[in-house]
Amino acid sequence: MSLLTVGTMAFDSIETPFGGVDKVVGGACTYISWAASYFIDKINLVSIVGSDFPDDELDALKKRGVDLSGLEIKQDGKTFFWAGKYHYNMISRDTLTTDLNVLDDFNPVLPQHFKSSDFVMLGNLTPDIQDQVLNQLSSADRSFVALDTMNFWMDIAMDKLLEVIRKVDVLIINDEEARQLSGEYSLVNAAKKIHTLGPKYLIIKKGEHGAMLFNESKVFFAPGLPLAEVKDPTGAGDTFAGGFMGYLAKTEDTSFENMKRALIYGSTMASFCVQEFGIENLKKINQDKIDKRVKAFSNLVKFDIP
Amino acid sequence: MSLLTVGTMAFDSIETPFGGVDKVVGGACTYISWAASYFIDKINLVSIVGSDFPDDELDALKKRGVDLSGLEIKQDGKTFFWAGKYHYNMISRDTLTTDLNVLDDFNPVLPQHFKSSDFVMLGNLTPDIQDQVLNQLSSADRSFVALDTMNFWMDIAMDKLLEVIRKVDVLIINDEEARQLSGEYSLVNAAKKIHTLGPKYLIIKKGEHGAMLFNESKVFFAPGLPLAEVKDPTGAGDTFAGGFMGYLAKTEDTSFENMKRALIYGSTMASFCVQEFGIENLKKINQDKIDKRVKAFSNLVKFDIP
Repeated sequence: MSLLTVGTMAFDSIETPFGGVDKVVGGACTYISWAASYFIDKINLVSIVGSDFPDDELDALKKRGVDLSGLEIKQDGKTFFWAGKYHYNMISRDTLTTDLNVLDDFNPVLPQHFKSSDFVMLGNLTPDIQDQVLNQLSSADRSFVALDTMNFWMDIAMDKLLEVIRKVDVLIINDEEARQLSGEYSLVNAAKKIHTLGPKYLIIKKGEHGAMLFNESKVFFAPGLPLAEVKDPTGAGDTFAGGFMGYLAKTEDTSFENMKRALIYGSTMASFCVQEFGIENLKKINQDKIDKRVKAFSNLVKFDIP
Repeated sequence: MSLLTVGTMAFDSIETPFGGVDKVVGGACTYISWAASYFIDKINLVSIVGSDFPDDELDALKKRGVDLSGLEIKQDGKTFFWAGKYHYNMISRDTLTTDLNVLDDFNPVLPQHFKSSDFVMLGNLTPDIQDQVLNQLSSADRSFVALDTMNFWMDIAMDKLLEVIRKVDVLIINDEEARQLSGEYSLVNAAKKIHTLGPKYLIIKKGEHGAMLFNESKVFFAPGLPLAEVKDPTGAGDTFAGGFMGYLAKTEDTSFENMKRALIYGSTMASFCVQEFGIENLKKINQDKIDKRVKAFSNLVKFDIP
């Protein structure tokens, strides 16, 4: 099955209390695609970069089975740049710089052979652009669509966001965003409200505290894997989404039971992501490492009541 | 098997963004004993109250199998009083009033038949008093001892605290306390350091985010149960500890595998606690409700990787 991934590609400068990196490759679409590439080899990428984006990074994606025919390379433009500084808790962060650059002109046009993608992962972007993508899908009724967004769009474009959310199958947001979107503090009540907005499935990410999957009355919880060292949380949410959707596309099964497994695989990929800066660790892993870590997740929560 | 519970008994005035109560019965020893009473009927309580503590509350504990011969009732004194106000997140809180009252003279003397208790739960108190209790145990080498403490004692009595911690089997603290005690931000590294301080087992409570059990290289995670309504987090940690130790005492099994189950039972009891103010809900539950909720915990995290 094919997975369409749409989102930013970027340069990130990241500072944490424990170190930092300058202008490394990042962006939602990059993380999503790398993570998904460990599950499927038909990834249809839609994004935009400037002429400064490194060729070898694009080649590396191609080698992972990523189809770049939906990538716009603006020869006279510079790639989106973000700089941020994490607080001591490695969750909250201050944005130091946001240079939209080419992202300002992002007007995604799907190549014909992308329009029938079976699975679609819409990374965090303006709801307008997310809707533009959905409207180009020939198979909008049949594609299984997941969407990520953020509180910023709830602040300035709530109506459009609600319009887009209504069309997707899975909404993937964090706990604070779920609270803002629903106006409910309890995540259980937030999930109930969000279901009425359209999405049949809701994933609430809680950073190091794990992620929850809601589907009407059902709920599943995937813990965060306790790690000795977290170097850089950047992209963890996107990596989670890429692993989640990659696993669903690979297994061609969107039942709740299988989505639970997808949540574990997503969490597994995110746990690798945070152990190095940027996408560094996502380049180094392999199936054996993934399998072992999924086993660690299983052991972490396994108990038997006689 | 018998469980010795040592800690405060109190009146609490509690304010939350969603309501409040005035001068309800609380205190670590009260919560611990109520929670443990659903597992065992040999609870040896050691605490102190004033003449203002309600007789019917003491009678209710007696009916649950709590032996009150270690409770000092100071006829000329008033019971410890605490008033606090929770923030919107229902985790952080401001203490508005702390009237130690009789607690200022607490000098626990164990009745002879308490000294050979099989299990001991030391609620949060000055490390001096906790040590006084340990020194009175005839079976200090054989009793299985768990200890709760807080950052306040790390600030003002670290040396004494370290001396007491060295003697216990299980240390039960929250994530911030684990970080302060170890000087490590990562809970995995914090656990490693804390093991070197004495305790073979470490439980790190993360409030609504669950609890982790560490034993050398092994780790287990019990999630928090997603609840539609949390009315009052007061006493949740003590209730968790009471359920945990009550289950261990009932099953007479301190293996890591059984401790995992005890963690789930502790979390179950805590989830009941927070649904009403004070100990109200702990008085209303029964075995059937407990069993059903343990099953809900099991379903929450259960997944199968083919």
